[in-house]
Amino acid sequence: MVDDAFAPHHAPPYYAVIFTSRRRDGVPGYEAMAERMRTLAEEQPGFLGIEGTRDATGFGMTVSYWSSPEAIRAWKDVAEHRAAQEFGIRHWYEHYECRVARVERAYRGPGDGLHPTAWEG
Amino acid sequence: MVDDAFAPHHAPPYYAVIFTSRRRDGVPGYEAMAERMRTLAEEQPGFLGIEGTRDATGFGMTVSYWSSPEAIRAWKDVAEHRAAQEFGIRHWYEHYECRVARVERAYRGPGDGLHPTAWEG
Repeated sequence: MVDDAFAPHHAPPYYAVIFTSRRRDGVPGYEAMAERMRTLAEEQPGFLGIEGTRDATGFGMTVSYWSSPEAIRAWKDVAEHRAAQEFGIRHWYEHYECRVARVERAYRGPGDGLHPTAWEG
Repeated sequence: MVDDAFAPHHAPPYYAVIFTSRRRDGVPGYEAMAERMRTLAEEQPGFLGIEGTRDATGFGMTVSYWSSPEAIRAWKDVAEHRAAQEFGIRHWYEHYECRVARVERAYRGPGDGLHPTAWEG
């Protein structure tokens, strides 16, 4: 059963922004801003989906999926997102890594998970 | 301060395997197998690093980094890993998605995080 923690399926190729971060302790406002950024991302052209989680130690991963590098660049430059990035860099994150990657193959399961599925491009 | 939850830096291009999963409740042995697979992955040719986290609801993300698609294929075919994949599909995962992606750009922060850093390829 697929739940909404998973991004919807799309046939590759498409693009992923892999964001991993260690949050600082005791900085308020993070959850509200993260939720707002997620809502704002969903409104952008080329947005395909987002998956994220954070563990009890404050280490988190968010992967957002996009139709093209241009869509990612445009999202990066949205004014409200840019303000959040700058605030986040200054206040929220002890460290982060951000990688932009081209998704070339995709599998899912259980079921036929060891092999590419019909929605593979 | 970078901690060991983050993969070491490498200049793009390289490859990422983005694995997101929802774990079933009450299936023993997962942690031991996950730890063993991580150790085994680290021994493979072309392994560059791994980042992973799982939240309290059982939704988790693991991204492993590799030098080439060939390294990923070879790792996928390691017998002990293949057995774990088959066991996992049958017992551990309610659902999973696996995407293979080519990392084209990489940023980090805080600091000069809004711009590509020297280690960008």
